[in-house]
Amino acid sequence: MKGIYFNGKEAVYREDLEPPVPTRTQSLIRILEAGICNTDKEVMRGYRPDFKGIMGHEFTGIVEASDDPKWIGKRVVGELNAGCGHCLYCRTGREKHCESRKVIGMEGKDGCFAEYMTLETRLLHEIPEALTTPEALLTEPLAAAYEIPRQIHLDPEAQVLILGDGRLAYLVASVLHLQGVELTVLGKHPDKLMAFAAYGKTTVEPAGSYDVVVEATGSPSGLETAMRLVRKQGTIVLKSTYAGKVSADMSYFAVHEITLLGSRCGPFPPALRLLEKKLVQLPVVEFYDLQDYQAAFASKAFKAGFQITK
Amino acid sequence: MKGIYFNGKEAVYREDLEPPVPTRTQSLIRILEAGICNTDKEVMRGYRPDFKGIMGHEFTGIVEASDDPKWIGKRVVGELNAGCGHCLYCRTGREKHCESRKVIGMEGKDGCFAEYMTLETRLLHEIPEALTTPEALLTEPLAAAYEIPRQIHLDPEAQVLILGDGRLAYLVASVLHLQGVELTVLGKHPDKLMAFAAYGKTTVEPAGSYDVVVEATGSPSGLETAMRLVRKQGTIVLKSTYAGKVSADMSYFAVHEITLLGSRCGPFPPALRLLEKKLVQLPVVEFYDLQDYQAAFASKAFKAGFQITK
Repeated sequence: MKGIYFNGKEAVYREDLEPPVPTRTQSLIRILEAGICNTDKEVMRGYRPDFKGIMGHEFTGIVEASDDPKWIGKRVVGELNAGCGHCLYCRTGREKHCESRKVIGMEGKDGCFAEYMTLETRLLHEIPEALTTPEALLTEPLAAAYEIPRQIHLDPEAQVLILGDGRLAYLVASVLHLQGVELTVLGKHPDKLMAFAAYGKTTVEPAGSYDVVVEATGSPSGLETAMRLVRKQGTIVLKSTYAGKVSADMSYFAVHEITLLGSRCGPFPPALRLLEKKLVQLPVVEFYDLQDYQAAFASKAFKAGFQITK
Repeated sequence: MKGIYFNGKEAVYREDLEPPVPTRTQSLIRILEAGICNTDKEVMRGYRPDFKGIMGHEFTGIVEASDDPKWIGKRVVGELNAGCGHCLYCRTGREKHCESRKVIGMEGKDGCFAEYMTLETRLLHEIPEALTTPEALLTEPLAAAYEIPRQIHLDPEAQVLILGDGRLAYLVASVLHLQGVELTVLGKHPDKLMAFAAYGKTTVEPAGSYDVVVEATGSPSGLETAMRLVRKQGTIVLKSTYAGKVSADMSYFAVHEITLLGSRCGPFPPALRLLEKKLVQLPVVEFYDLQDYQAAFASKAFKAGFQITK
């Protein structure tokens, strides 16, 4: 089987991988396309030092075998976190926070940059007919943006600022503008900001004050900007993850009663519903063959990925 | 008039202060007792470099003159933040966050370490008959603890940890245990922790994991401890203010979807209701005369204050 394998030091293309065999709670998925996420690049930089295996966690595929026969032949996307099923987090519907979870392509479980992958059947979601598989490939990153309205109540009269003009910021903007809020996007690149014009105001000047600020720059300076621009008693949603520690005036949070809310993976169903209704339209993915993985990882496209089987 | 005056450098006892004259929206209050807060000590250390005036913001008193005659003769406590009345924060019931607010004893307004003080009449609260004035003197710091259940929904099944064994931690414990939650207090001083035994478990060992962690140590290391002990998707309530910046692993918030919530001054009415019902019982205040202010500021009692008039 062909695939991109992380050997603990680097990603390599291999054609000698063993096809996976599903357990009695899993399905076997023939991968159609796979998307490259920043996290994959972090895996290559040693972000998950214990991980060795097939990379990748964003995919579309066809179920070829399953413990539940209704899934066979279905086009699917799937969630990446498989919990233990019996800890506090799993019992309270928060499987993604299970302490001993497996994460496809990252932790204890082979991923989707390969011809076949197995996944717990309960983590599958059928792709609606109206969606092409390349469109559905953006379900997982879009779901991460849907985590924000899942975590907080967004008053449709709220003034919301998104910090950043990259892919993450774009996905957040495409979700939040649908809430009816007054949206502003603050970025550094006028050319990238043009893509956000349909969602709200765009600016390169850090000014004003906002009820909710979504930090999606990926840079620690983004947190400082967020603190400066959030209203008192407002909320900063922290979507960025930074390498290492960040120094901040924490008293500012206490004195101005600001909420800082960390936000990560999110729910697939609303992402699929809005994609199906064409209410979220995302740029097309730039596809590569698996053996061209180095060019794929270096791509500057909105989103790059692999076309694996048909 | 006698009072403790901060001259921009140090606190001095004076007997030549001009008695204040209320405006047409204010009341004139004869101060009975005044409480010393850590913030007063910070004012002396230059925390409010622009402030010159009479110090103090926790008081009990009798209204001697008022724009609203119903207040005359009433025993009162009062809120410290007087907003402009027309900005976004004032219009939305958040006067304490008004950008141009005056704060008694700290910012643009003489405080209560004196025989008389004026205050906007709308900021007054009558002391219930069942309460002595020394008991009512703790309304303001207790109200700050009530800000927590005002800001967040506390599931009575939540496991709540309070970090700290000082006065702030004590006030928070005395409020939160009434919510029915399973309360643990983590401190460093076994002798101080004994006072918390009626409220929940006490410990000097940082262990376990909690849905809600209230950081009330006043020390930046408290934030690190809070991050270690809060459950994923849990909430850290930041009651402490720290001098200067604090370095923290901010990605931890994003990855584990932790909420950090700053919390400051709170509502007087619930504090008065629970004090009146004797459901919150606080140690007695150690009283000094105004001229003994240096001994009062140096007191190690749970709470020190001034007995000013009778």
